[in-house]
Amino acid sequence: MAEASARRRGRGGGGAARRAERTAVSIETAKYIERKIPNFEILNEEALEIIEHNAETVLEEIGVNFLDNPAAIERWKAAGADVNRERVRIPRGLARELIKTAPRQFTQHARNPERNVVIGGNTMVCAPVYGPPFVRDMDGGRRYATMEDFEKFVKLGYMSKWLHHSGGTVCEPTDVAVNKRHLDMLRAHMVLSDKPFMGSVTEPSRAQDSVDMCGLLFGKDFVRDNTVMTSLININSPMTFDDVMMGAMEVYAENNQACIVSPFIVGGAMAPVSVAGTLTQVLAEVLAGIAYNQLCRPGAPVIMGTFVTSIDMNSGAPTFGTPEAAHITYGAGQLARRLGLPYRSAGSFTGSKLPDAQAAYETANSLNMGLLSGVNFMLHSCGWLEGGLVSSFEKFVMDADQLGILHHLAQGVSVDENGQAMDAIREVGPGGHYLGCAHTQANFKSAFWRTDVLDYKPFETWAEEGERDTMTLAHAKMKQMLANYQKPALDPAIEEAIDAYVDEKKASMPDAFA
Amino acid sequence: MAEASARRRGRGGGGAARRAERTAVSIETAKYIERKIPNFEILNEEALEIIEHNAETVLEEIGVNFLDNPAAIERWKAAGADVNRERVRIPRGLARELIKTAPRQFTQHARNPERNVVIGGNTMVCAPVYGPPFVRDMDGGRRYATMEDFEKFVKLGYMSKWLHHSGGTVCEPTDVAVNKRHLDMLRAHMVLSDKPFMGSVTEPSRAQDSVDMCGLLFGKDFVRDNTVMTSLININSPMTFDDVMMGAMEVYAENNQACIVSPFIVGGAMAPVSVAGTLTQVLAEVLAGIAYNQLCRPGAPVIMGTFVTSIDMNSGAPTFGTPEAAHITYGAGQLARRLGLPYRSAGSFTGSKLPDAQAAYETANSLNMGLLSGVNFMLHSCGWLEGGLVSSFEKFVMDADQLGILHHLAQGVSVDENGQAMDAIREVGPGGHYLGCAHTQANFKSAFWRTDVLDYKPFETWAEEGERDTMTLAHAKMKQMLANYQKPALDPAIEEAIDAYVDEKKASMPDAFA
Repeated sequence: MAEASARRRGRGGGGAARRAERTAVSIETAKYIERKIPNFEILNEEALEIIEHNAETVLEEIGVNFLDNPAAIERWKAAGADVNRERVRIPRGLARELIKTAPRQFTQHARNPERNVVIGGNTMVCAPVYGPPFVRDMDGGRRYATMEDFEKFVKLGYMSKWLHHSGGTVCEPTDVAVNKRHLDMLRAHMVLSDKPFMGSVTEPSRAQDSVDMCGLLFGKDFVRDNTVMTSLININSPMTFDDVMMGAMEVYAENNQACIVSPFIVGGAMAPVSVAGTLTQVLAEVLAGIAYNQLCRPGAPVIMGTFVTSIDMNSGAPTFGTPEAAHITYGAGQLARRLGLPYRSAGSFTGSKLPDAQAAYETANSLNMGLLSGVNFMLHSCGWLEGGLVSSFEKFVMDADQLGILHHLAQGVSVDENGQAMDAIREVGPGGHYLGCAHTQANFKSAFWRTDVLDYKPFETWAEEGERDTMTLAHAKMKQMLANYQKPALDPAIEEAIDAYVDEKKASMPDAFA
Repeated sequence: MAEASARRRGRGGGGAARRAERTAVSIETAKYIERKIPNFEILNEEALEIIEHNAETVLEEIGVNFLDNPAAIERWKAAGADVNRERVRIPRGLARELIKTAPRQFTQHARNPERNVVIGGNTMVCAPVYGPPFVRDMDGGRRYATMEDFEKFVKLGYMSKWLHHSGGTVCEPTDVAVNKRHLDMLRAHMVLSDKPFMGSVTEPSRAQDSVDMCGLLFGKDFVRDNTVMTSLININSPMTFDDVMMGAMEVYAENNQACIVSPFIVGGAMAPVSVAGTLTQVLAEVLAGIAYNQLCRPGAPVIMGTFVTSIDMNSGAPTFGTPEAAHITYGAGQLARRLGLPYRSAGSFTGSKLPDAQAAYETANSLNMGLLSGVNFMLHSCGWLEGGLVSSFEKFVMDADQLGILHHLAQGVSVDENGQAMDAIREVGPGGHYLGCAHTQANFKSAFWRTDVLDYKPFETWAEEGERDTMTLAHAKMKQMLANYQKPALDPAIEEAIDAYVDEKKASMPDAFA
């Protein structure tokens, strides 16, 4: 169906194709990352075994709560768990056995098949910030997010070379009713971008809307047989699975759509203040959550998630880019690989109110750690600001540029003859320089990663041009990207069907704002 | 001698001790880092062997130049090298054999023995920025550095908790004659700080001044038997060893003082554009340089250095925090460990003109990589700006704060009973919170790294306080640190002797400004 859609686009899109050609550089998207470098293994075998043993103890002795969800309770009983009202105690080894049906790797399809992503194994897929109710930019400052902002972020994501995924709630469009905004958000991802995207999880019915709308975009048959959404299912840590999130997950699993099952950890509040204790709880929670996912549909694609921040014990604020978060993210990656599950963690995290140096230190700490910890799906990989309260337009562009570094890092070191460069060393010799040598001439275009945002100019030029800081440069780049944006071609009949679905659904309900 | 100096301070320092007590928090210095985490090994055995083989080929077939240095040529001849005028070709395996006398680890003594640092093995010692002719701060903008600036940086280094080393040329005091400024710089490090420091390398005679002044500070006997300076010897890449740097190194080696023998690589200009080619050249250069160091005095303490940046092929500007630099830094760390040598690389590198987001991304990329690549001595660990042209007061403070993250990261993950936190998980249970539980109460003070600079405040508080960005916060912190600075106590007789030496030397020469 995606191919059919591509063919249709090919037929009717002469003007679009010419436009696309003119802006070809801007809409280039890098393939998802395939790591040719090792992962960083911070825990030794003994530590891993202790944590794994303790997680099973937690499941067996303490158990987890599945709230307001009689069907889940029944499923757990049938699977052999020890159930007492909402408390589910899982015998040692049972959860680990149940998750064996989960795939190690899966493909999430995009409407443009060139943008399909493979999630798991040695890959990493980058998706933008998710969830903030506010946006910020240099023109308008900090304000509640609207649908107009949302669409701008989807366009920026589409135009970002190193971003593979359009994401989900890139900001909360607060000018649209809570019970309707998922429809507008999905439509924006489907129509304004051709990258893969996420579904709604705020009600099971909204998950079903997401599946139904994908049926219009990809064709129902295609959706039945293929994964076209990856959606975010948070666990109410510690060890609580609420009916809303579980209800959405049930819809997705039953439709063979991917879920990220993700403990939401603020260390010191929702988990112990120690790293090993937090990893124990994370592992217990994902074992229970992913086992339940597989109980709903064995073989459904699922990702082990870990969202980690620590609480600042002086102010109570969440903190980002910290060494404790790094320890947990590295460790959780090892646990995910031992379970044979794709792994989601890290992102452009910061507590800063501005896209300033603090934001960049904290973000770079997390992005680097994300790559080396073996993350397969990096949600929030660009645009996050102020502890997740704000989606920043400038930071979106700055962070997305930094993702290029991760792409290049992941390629590893070539030691083929060209990589060895012995001819160059012989040609240049002691005291010479390599600028003009044959090897440099042959390789300089691809040898080094190059920013599209940061400043490499001489001081004098930079001063003449107004001493612009990174935020100012990113603001200009963002404006340019939006000005160059061209909607990717889509069969008008499909777009009409999506519009009609959204309009009908919205007309069928009164507005709700909570 | 250092102990004697400490005793003297104890006797005469009643007032100083009371002052020190009042500012005790500010002058706390963390012990140098001892890694309890693995290093990141980016190269596999095959790649390492290829690079090692090729480096020996470079030494044997192409060789290196020792310029204007007949004594070096004689030493190489005697050692068995194939010498043709200034070109020294080193038979395969000879350099590797010669460096076997270099220690794997050594102690650099400080005048305060509590500040001694161990360099090599699993340690990492952080020293500040080195070399910029300009300084920048929010008050005065960008300007030529003066001795007053230099002293401020030494004071900031002394007050920085996570900085172990006072460094060397923290900026070039351009208001002092070139042939005299090393004397003022050394005096500042000796008198204004009690952390270890670096010696002068700009002339062999200045290296000798450095040794002689250390004799006054530590006692001549102590200096003869112990390492009290670590100094930076750059190689003129590609494969050229000039007489000034080699002359300084000869003085230090003969006096058993430590040298960092460091290729200075701008990839694409002084080395091939490929990572493996650059590593080959780096290894050939350090093998030759360190072998020569050991020819001067077998057993002299020496560090394998690697300074790496790439050239931006569009503008010719050096670039920092790039993935290619990361590849080289990780790889060179592996090569150093295989040679059994302490390793110097990474730092607070950036090409940005301001301590903004670009500066922080690039710096964080390099600091994280430095820790994971096994760096033992991190020169430039704070304060570097604008490609090394500028020492930034605000960035010094910002970066030095980030070094705390490296300290905590390096501690690794504890899986003792307290780390496992099973009691906490049992106490809290599903749906509870950890804020008040016994484990949190017992551990919260030390559980998480905490910044002394960055902003964790709620948005409203931050807005009321003037929406300060990181640079503004760091500026205030810098002012506070300088206001709180107290000179560490030093025997007045020693200080007088140092002053007299400096004054006499300066009076004995006309000013030279080139």
